[in-house]
Amino acid sequence: MEYENTLMNQSLFQQLKEYSASDYYPFHMPGHKRQSFGNDSWLSEIFSIDITEIHGFDNLHQAEGILKESMEWAAKCYGADESYYLVNGSSSGILSAVCGCTSRRGTILISRNCHKSVYNGILLNELKTEYLYPQILESLGIQGGILPEDVEKKLKENPKIQAVVIVSPTYDGMVSDIEAISKIAHQYGVLLLVDEAHGAHFPFGKKGKFPVSALEKGADIVIQSLHKTLPSLTQTAIIHMNKSFLNEEKRNRVKQYLSIYQSSSPSYVFLAAIENCIRYMSREGKEVLFQFSKELREFYHKCNSLKHILVAENGWIGNAGIFDKDPSKIILYTGGCKKSGIWLGNFLRENYHLELEMCATQYALALGSLWDQKQGLDRLEKGLRAADECMEKNEDKGKEISWPAMKKQVFPKAFYDIWEAAESETELCRLNECEGRVSADFIYLYPPGIPCLAPGEIISKEMILLLCQYKEMGLTVYGIQESQGFYIKVLKKIQKRAETRREL
Amino acid sequence: MEYENTLMNQSLFQQLKEYSASDYYPFHMPGHKRQSFGNDSWLSEIFSIDITEIHGFDNLHQAEGILKESMEWAAKCYGADESYYLVNGSSSGILSAVCGCTSRRGTILISRNCHKSVYNGILLNELKTEYLYPQILESLGIQGGILPEDVEKKLKENPKIQAVVIVSPTYDGMVSDIEAISKIAHQYGVLLLVDEAHGAHFPFGKKGKFPVSALEKGADIVIQSLHKTLPSLTQTAIIHMNKSFLNEEKRNRVKQYLSIYQSSSPSYVFLAAIENCIRYMSREGKEVLFQFSKELREFYHKCNSLKHILVAENGWIGNAGIFDKDPSKIILYTGGCKKSGIWLGNFLRENYHLELEMCATQYALALGSLWDQKQGLDRLEKGLRAADECMEKNEDKGKEISWPAMKKQVFPKAFYDIWEAAESETELCRLNECEGRVSADFIYLYPPGIPCLAPGEIISKEMILLLCQYKEMGLTVYGIQESQGFYIKVLKKIQKRAETRREL
Repeated sequence: MEYENTLMNQSLFQQLKEYSASDYYPFHMPGHKRQSFGNDSWLSEIFSIDITEIHGFDNLHQAEGILKESMEWAAKCYGADESYYLVNGSSSGILSAVCGCTSRRGTILISRNCHKSVYNGILLNELKTEYLYPQILESLGIQGGILPEDVEKKLKENPKIQAVVIVSPTYDGMVSDIEAISKIAHQYGVLLLVDEAHGAHFPFGKKGKFPVSALEKGADIVIQSLHKTLPSLTQTAIIHMNKSFLNEEKRNRVKQYLSIYQSSSPSYVFLAAIENCIRYMSREGKEVLFQFSKELREFYHKCNSLKHILVAENGWIGNAGIFDKDPSKIILYTGGCKKSGIWLGNFLRENYHLELEMCATQYALALGSLWDQKQGLDRLEKGLRAADECMEKNEDKGKEISWPAMKKQVFPKAFYDIWEAAESETELCRLNECEGRVSADFIYLYPPGIPCLAPGEIISKEMILLLCQYKEMGLTVYGIQESQGFYIKVLKKIQKRAETRREL
Repeated sequence: MEYENTLMNQSLFQQLKEYSASDYYPFHMPGHKRQSFGNDSWLSEIFSIDITEIHGFDNLHQAEGILKESMEWAAKCYGADESYYLVNGSSSGILSAVCGCTSRRGTILISRNCHKSVYNGILLNELKTEYLYPQILESLGIQGGILPEDVEKKLKENPKIQAVVIVSPTYDGMVSDIEAISKIAHQYGVLLLVDEAHGAHFPFGKKGKFPVSALEKGADIVIQSLHKTLPSLTQTAIIHMNKSFLNEEKRNRVKQYLSIYQSSSPSYVFLAAIENCIRYMSREGKEVLFQFSKELREFYHKCNSLKHILVAENGWIGNAGIFDKDPSKIILYTGGCKKSGIWLGNFLRENYHLELEMCATQYALALGSLWDQKQGLDRLEKGLRAADECMEKNEDKGKEISWPAMKKQVFPKAFYDIWEAAESETELCRLNECEGRVSADFIYLYPPGIPCLAPGEIISKEMILLLCQYKEMGLTVYGIQESQGFYIKVLKKIQKRAETRREL
């Protein structure tokens, strides 16, 4: 591994720093000319290494030098056939994978709890969409994974499906059986794309017994957000491709889309941060992650004595469902108490200065990472203990529904394909008068950015109730417009065009 | 201007720094938890302010708080009706503008020297394309601007055109008469989109007599790269929209595409750098730019005494054509000498440690900015004087053709629409056997990233000669594959489908 040797003393970061320290004068972009704002060291330090595609520093969109070597080295670290650095987040990798692996107006099978970027890919490539619905773990009020048999059923029913997209782990950390799913997909000659945005630490987590990455389980394309769970900058990510079932033509298509959906002036600060992160993880980071897993286990153990709040660890979830779980996603379940996850989040923020990742109706989500400090987990435990004291048992449990806990029957039905709806004439409709209308927009909470409603889907009474509930709880629901009431964009009329109308 | 007051002490950067210094503990993304790699201060400083969409920090994709206020303040600074920060470069703004202002399979009129991102938008939205060809400034071997009468002619001929895209200034700094062009476009009920990626300094350059921004000249959408000519980070940009001719529905479509083509985890480091840059430019930056313009003028004046190399300043170009020119793009014309622009670039790099923006056959381009130091321009003058001594007059001038100097007749003719060609069956063909074949790929030099050939265009003998010449000179030509010879991807066969074939 030649680049491994180069990396010893000459990472991209170090090369940028050395270049910055040299007396080469830039008559090129960027306009800051590696100078600084004076006393503002934050920007100055970044400016000094923020270069463009100059002599010796290659070009991300047709890598032939240092970036090519770096990405080939990364692929080896991961055991992937090809890996590419992403400077426009996992979103750009997902868009490229979806558009690259399907033909225009082709058909795709996706898990309904996919991130909005999957839906955006569907919109751009005008795809027909079939859905897989995640299992519901009733006891925790969260969604589980996707069952392999559901994948097989769909593939058998619809031979037009060109690719399957599964999000695993989910935002809450639930992992699907990718090995079984990939076998089924390949049996039907279909590609498997895994959105592993929330599991970038998996490939480095064996010693800490984190779930195994989809990369090792036979997925054809895996997209990981480096910033979400590893020490890298926000908006950085990586896409991996395996050649066994993904032919060269498809790989080239994906690469073509990567250069469409990413800036032609990619940030070298990002690229250096990505390389730095992978280098760190493939060396000392692994051990740090292992130490973190031990601290996590201790934390979960201590939380067993809480009376009301349920801190759901892997083993516990394992009993509730058949899915593996990422332990670094700490689910704080309040569904058995009279206070909501939102209350818990506010309590912890106000009294313990702890900022959580997401707060929902029946649970809150704390996101741990290998760089968590002992004092952080200790403070969380202390805060939970104090919150637990304020809780009462809720005997009416199960009355409320929340998005992650949504019953299967609340999953909306599609009347039009997404792109059809997006191109139709629309009007604003009061939320409480929307029953039976067809949504013209994506309606979602962020985080996690999973559409409650996609364009073309019929708005049910249950969905209206759910959305009203979200608004009442003060959650920001994207796609709902406010002006003396709540409004959603719906189709002006439902046209019954036989050739395009979907079967209900 | 309330946010103006906020900005006095509370810029986004300062708020991030304050938050970073607080004792709030992050149980959320990013995974670096604002910690550091120890002794590597570069990343540490950035990590400390690299947050996600937490409480109080808004969300770029549905801005309702600090980011909304910041972008509204920015719009006021620019005199635009709406402005949006871009974290995926001008590319994302251009894709969004093109897709938002046209319907799928609609028709667009673009200047042939547009950046590849315009062609990518055309590909994604399956547009029919009409071209405007830039004037050629023969004496300098570069392309000039677009003539308003050419725009009018095209709009008269084809009433299906929905939008016009002009790049102004060009990569070389040539400015088209946007005022006249916008009047014509609006007369025909067509929107005008201006790629002002290379002119982000124009709005702040009045005192220094830089060209006036397209924003003031009636363009409906203007996209500017902040990093190219101003002190901001690479990959940051801004898009402005004016309401007069761009209705709400179209503006919403553009905004929808912005959230498709940009990461759902936008970098707060970028967002803060963007705000910081605009704040600086609207205050002291203007004056710094004015001082720079004076130094530039002095530099041009000194260069008048060079014997062979022609350093083309604004007044000089003004006489050569009818287009305004951005003086900060310093054209070093060697077309009258026996040495090429590439030779000049190497000479200056090796002997004077000056790195230029681009080196072509007949000229090289040095990019100046307000943060240039006196010693930089002095070193450039000294280097040019030394290079000038090595030059000889070239009596065979005009024999070579280079892309920027391309004669109009070299502009390729389109046989298929871009998306049609991109979806057809392809094969690799040896470059010297390609005459008469149809390109299946974009072939371009980067910089500047303007396609010599787009998919669907017929490959002429002249084009083959030009591409061979580029390869001989050691330039990297994207889209040409090398393996025991040069190859281009071409369509397997030309199908004469009457309904899709373009008129030749």
